[in-house]
Amino acid sequence: MTDADPHVIVPFDAVDPKTRLSPLLDRAEREALARTMLTDVLAALRELGVDHTVLATAPVDTPAPVAVDDRSLTTAVNARLAGDTVGEVEPPGPSPAGPVGVVMADLPLATPGALRRLLSGAADVTMAPGRAGGTNALCVCDPTFRVDYHGTSCRDHREAARRGGLELATVDSFRLATDVDEPADLVEVLLHARGTESAVWLREAGITVDTGDGRVTAVRDR
Amino acid sequence: MTDADPHVIVPFDAVDPKTRLSPLLDRAEREALARTMLTDVLAALRELGVDHTVLATAPVDTPAPVAVDDRSLTTAVNARLAGDTVGEVEPPGPSPAGPVGVVMADLPLATPGALRRLLSGAADVTMAPGRAGGTNALCVCDPTFRVDYHGTSCRDHREAARRGGLELATVDSFRLATDVDEPADLVEVLLHARGTESAVWLREAGITVDTGDGRVTAVRDR
Repeated sequence: MTDADPHVIVPFDAVDPKTRLSPLLDRAEREALARTMLTDVLAALRELGVDHTVLATAPVDTPAPVAVDDRSLTTAVNARLAGDTVGEVEPPGPSPAGPVGVVMADLPLATPGALRRLLSGAADVTMAPGRAGGTNALCVCDPTFRVDYHGTSCRDHREAARRGGLELATVDSFRLATDVDEPADLVEVLLHARGTESAVWLREAGITVDTGDGRVTAVRDR
Repeated sequence: MTDADPHVIVPFDAVDPKTRLSPLLDRAEREALARTMLTDVLAALRELGVDHTVLATAPVDTPAPVAVDDRSLTTAVNARLAGDTVGEVEPPGPSPAGPVGVVMADLPLATPGALRRLLSGAADVTMAPGRAGGTNALCVCDPTFRVDYHGTSCRDHREAARRGGLELATVDSFRLATDVDEPADLVEVLLHARGTESAVWLREAGITVDTGDGRVTAVRDR
């Protein structure tokens, strides 16, 4: 992509993440899977060729530039949308003076193609909704827009754009709508993200897709 | 769209449908909602301008041509893919000699734009996966391809295409991935299908989105 592309920030919860996966994975495993999913998202961004910074709640070892900010997700992202560079660690990413992308770290199905559809949007705000009212990814071209990740954020972001007189576009993507929060979501990783490190990690952990009783679920065989 | 477009069949389960919605809706209500979702899918196909036939398990009152076939979903769809016109009622739809689309009737988020991405596919088979391994929509250009809706059908369809030496493409669409099977799916209808008859029906039935305890769910307030 080009110089006019957004700088993408990737919020990452480094501490006790993904607690709803506890029925299948212990804490160390959940932290390992979270880092692996982050790796996959960063690989897709790198392949697409857009600059990016991980916005982590605690230091994390990753090839991308990292900014550490332990405030709430909403506060930390809004600080970046306002041009704040606090917390940037080695080496600092470009200051997001232009468009800013916000792509969650738990989207292992994200491909360069799906991210391109999001990040090449010409609207003031382009949104990729997640299941159950979430906002999994945004591209923010208008510097006045602020996020609020509480509750049904996709509805709130739509409403915030309307109140601000901003044009909001939506990207219709199953890959970007699929964040990994609970065991059922692992089925999607195993079925649709087969080349990724996340899928390899799950298989090595013994997680497989089970169709035994007619329902399709993720189970652990050891 | 044009004469080279697929003829779309819309499988519809007319008898005691959507039993997993029983926690919120009684049988008559589930049948009414299923018919309303069918209406929305047919409206999107009509707006797109593609010919279509409802393939129903029992007679159903709808403005589209109907074929009644009470065999299993897989058997009934494969009969159509083989050019069978058995069960066609007033007035018979065109015999599907060319490409055939198969679009499920429980996709109230489907828009003409999302369906266009599916139906304009140039591959031998184009698939829109659903959550949990399903196949919510297909466009079949190769007359030898057959469906199997049991289990993780998206994986089986991918494998069947590979075995048959057919090119299979995937449409990355949240709208087509979202079929309505359980209460959580109603959240998606209320949030993302706001102009549809299905969303109106749900609101009139007292179904709303609740964010009370941090989880976003569909609840019934009367």
